[in-house]
Amino acid sequence: MIDINKAIESLDWSKEPKGLYEPIAYTLASGGKRLRPTLALIASALFGGNEEDVLPAALALEVFHNFTLLHDDVMDRAAVRRGRPTVHVKWDDNTAILSGDQMLIEAYRLLSGVPADKLPQVLKWFNEMATGICEGQQYDVDFEHMEEVSIADYMKMIELKTSVLLANALRTGGYIAGANEAQQQALYLFGLHIGLAFQIQDDILDVYGDPKTFGKAIGGDICCNKKTLLLLTALQTADAASRDELNQWLSVNDRPEEKIAAVTALYNRLGVREAAEAVMEEHTALALKQLEQLPQNAACEQLRQLAAKLITRKS
Amino acid sequence: MIDINKAIESLDWSKEPKGLYEPIAYTLASGGKRLRPTLALIASALFGGNEEDVLPAALALEVFHNFTLLHDDVMDRAAVRRGRPTVHVKWDDNTAILSGDQMLIEAYRLLSGVPADKLPQVLKWFNEMATGICEGQQYDVDFEHMEEVSIADYMKMIELKTSVLLANALRTGGYIAGANEAQQQALYLFGLHIGLAFQIQDDILDVYGDPKTFGKAIGGDICCNKKTLLLLTALQTADAASRDELNQWLSVNDRPEEKIAAVTALYNRLGVREAAEAVMEEHTALALKQLEQLPQNAACEQLRQLAAKLITRKS
Repeated sequence: MIDINKAIESLDWSKEPKGLYEPIAYTLASGGKRLRPTLALIASALFGGNEEDVLPAALALEVFHNFTLLHDDVMDRAAVRRGRPTVHVKWDDNTAILSGDQMLIEAYRLLSGVPADKLPQVLKWFNEMATGICEGQQYDVDFEHMEEVSIADYMKMIELKTSVLLANALRTGGYIAGANEAQQQALYLFGLHIGLAFQIQDDILDVYGDPKTFGKAIGGDICCNKKTLLLLTALQTADAASRDELNQWLSVNDRPEEKIAAVTALYNRLGVREAAEAVMEEHTALALKQLEQLPQNAACEQLRQLAAKLITRKS
Repeated sequence: MIDINKAIESLDWSKEPKGLYEPIAYTLASGGKRLRPTLALIASALFGGNEEDVLPAALALEVFHNFTLLHDDVMDRAAVRRGRPTVHVKWDDNTAILSGDQMLIEAYRLLSGVPADKLPQVLKWFNEMATGICEGQQYDVDFEHMEEVSIADYMKMIELKTSVLLANALRTGGYIAGANEAQQQALYLFGLHIGLAFQIQDDILDVYGDPKTFGKAIGGDICCNKKTLLLLTALQTADAASRDELNQWLSVNDRPEEKIAAVTALYNRLGVREAAEAVMEEHTALALKQLEQLPQNAACEQLRQLAAKLITRKS
């Protein structure tokens, strides 16, 4: 398979004006799992597709993903991403906004390199995906100001914010390589469910991850009262005394270390981690079920292993 | 010709989440000249094109233009646009960033509605145009921190920031309607030159406009030492005493009314307005020259009138 890191490195950002392109180079050079382009390429391999045909879409999806991180970090005032200062910290907010805009445009530029007969459908799906992700981000913001958020609403939000990108990467790769409609749908659903499992694992790692491998500060979600699956499950399953204790900690803004320790202890007592892991495993199982409808070849095995790896990852 | 305002009004933004879509509806409902879609439609009419074929691109260009205004207003901390509070003032910065992102995606969604056989070329041009505009915005930012900016660099910047969008609107409209390559090129150059004339008129209006019709505060550019054609011409043509006086005013930050009055008086003394008007008229003439290569019909006459109107406009 094409080395996706090399393909990303080969994109040329040594252009003028430097103030626009250097933050893009910086963002794309900061690593990450390259999960989305990898999924697109594996989905293509499932059907013996030509890698060169799917590569433009694979790169577009990775650049798009990094664009969302860049703008999300401004909106969330996040200072660190993948162990490095975020763009709005290293440069400033305006740079992050404008270079982010340009990254979104670059994603479309890359996408336009797919075979012309496939472009209308690929572009349509890409637009739907991008819209879903913006909607998901907006729901995420809305939830911050809402008293109560149901677990169902939370799952819908993370489906939009995380899953549709993975789902679309898989469907697009398969479609370009000649998958039929049922197979496109199976790939899409596989992506949706591993996306949900992936995001739940993210919520878990934010509390229980190893600071050495996680790349972000541990407990960030607890500090800012982020309504994650862990917090929503805790609020829903706690007895009155525990819920009072939890709500009290939610009103604390000035003692982050103490807050993280206390809320984590509460989560432990309530078995919140295990509950979240059960939901994650349920979605992993639903994802794996979709694979039955796909060609049982080496690429399919790769998807199976990838799903298993996602839920045991450390970063 | 299709009523472009009605076509924009018919776009549906009554979707969830409201926090994402209401600012888009607000931005698009705030009027403006609808110049870009109008140019695309006239260019199509030049060749007897089907309006329905070009409308998706015309709308995409207008939505894209409004996206750039939305994000530019955040970056410039502009409080008023078209006589109304900007999105980041009425809502907040994060809303302006995210709804702006979604507008950019909506522009691509609209664009994808052009006839499939025309889509690859139209998309490629759109991406190049969008990139040019981001580069122009970055140069504009860079110029703020530069000691000296040449008039040539300034003209290149406004070509990117303003002209390529008008040029591409015309070329895209013509291309979809069947213009040949020479005609596409003539339309593009017509757009480039009226764009330059348009932006110079904008610089002039910012100083000499009527506050009742201009929609923005008069003297905004002077207040923030914006390197407009007027300021660059003044710095370049002033005698030593006038230049010293001008530089002294450039270091004043706390007396805006006095500063505007003094710098305007200096401009008057130096004949800067007349010099800028001469450059504007030169580009208008270059634009009109391009029209000779196009079908001499009613649509061509519309372009001729539009060019004349742009340089006598009041807002």
